[in-house]
Amino acid sequence: MDYYSSKITALIDEFSRLPGIGAKSAQRLAFHVISMPEERVNGLAQALVEARRGVRYCKECFTLTDDELCPICASEKRDHGTIMVVENTRDLAAYEKTGRYEGVYHVLHGAISPALGIGPADIRLKELMTRLAGDVKEVIIATNSSLEGETTAMYLSKLIKPTGILVTRIASGVPVGGDLEYIDEVTLLRALEGRTEL
Amino acid sequence: MDYYSSKITALIDEFSRLPGIGAKSAQRLAFHVISMPEERVNGLAQALVEARRGVRYCKECFTLTDDELCPICASEKRDHGTIMVVENTRDLAAYEKTGRYEGVYHVLHGAISPALGIGPADIRLKELMTRLAGDVKEVIIATNSSLEGETTAMYLSKLIKPTGILVTRIASGVPVGGDLEYIDEVTLLRALEGRTEL
Repeated sequence: MDYYSSKITALIDEFSRLPGIGAKSAQRLAFHVISMPEERVNGLAQALVEARRGVRYCKECFTLTDDELCPICASEKRDHGTIMVVENTRDLAAYEKTGRYEGVYHVLHGAISPALGIGPADIRLKELMTRLAGDVKEVIIATNSSLEGETTAMYLSKLIKPTGILVTRIASGVPVGGDLEYIDEVTLLRALEGRTEL
Repeated sequence: MDYYSSKITALIDEFSRLPGIGAKSAQRLAFHVISMPEERVNGLAQALVEARRGVRYCKECFTLTDDELCPICASEKRDHGTIMVVENTRDLAAYEKTGRYEGVYHVLHGAISPALGIGPADIRLKELMTRLAGDVKEVIIATNSSLEGETTAMYLSKLIKPTGILVTRIASGVPVGGDLEYIDEVTLLRALEGRTEL
């Protein structure tokens, strides 16, 4: 659809290859870019290139970071004896946003999924076990409550328990502010099973 | 939220400044970029910079283009005596996608809106009138059927009619495949008024 400008068409093509951006959004974004101040467009382009080129894995927890160690693993204020295991860096970010978790993390970069052929060796499990040789008191498993996340949690729990380290799982239940009417049955049953005394 | 990598945070910031991209989408996009092959990220960055730097207005119809004249105005196959007036380049693209319009265009880059303080001098109206001095048979007004689009259509029609050039307006009505039940009353009345004999 090269009706006006091959350069805009090229940009629309690039945008529409990104996840969650359809043809209409790609077009809207491209026309927005044309109307942006040139230095802002250059800023966006530079941020893209630098993020792709400069980001690496923290050698401790395997989150994405700029340096050898991520700011969390490098911080003396964090409790390095408590490790929360998450599937990916977005999940880490979600917990960090709460501002209330004081331990460190371990990012698996995936979850065990027999259906997709992803086994324990395909995620950062070995690296977690290496860390457990240190002075660790608790491993909090915060994988998703999907089939894959639960499978990974079970596997991890069996692997870690023999070491004597405390293994915990974040609670499943009704989201805060969630309307029971709109919540699926599995979650409702989980919330019931996990009920606590008031 | 600089929990992991300042470079990713910078990219998330840049993405979330684009229209229609919320915090969650920006994060998803940024993490996707990290996982893309480096040459694809560079390609996207280059497309951004080139689109912003290289695009200009066609000196005839004012659509966005790479050259002095857009491919449509430069084409000998198009009927240069028929001009379709549209609000923006996206609307031009929409009609071009039909593949059935053989005339040329005029892009106003906006519509008259007293509420927003946009008057006739703020859109490419003068440039249209200059073009009408040439050999033009028909002006098809294809501004949106919004208040602004209709105001612009009325204004244009009054301006052009004295020149003796045929002025037409694209039809309003029920979209093809549209279910009457879900269509607003104004559109239904328009469709009724615009009914044609079978």
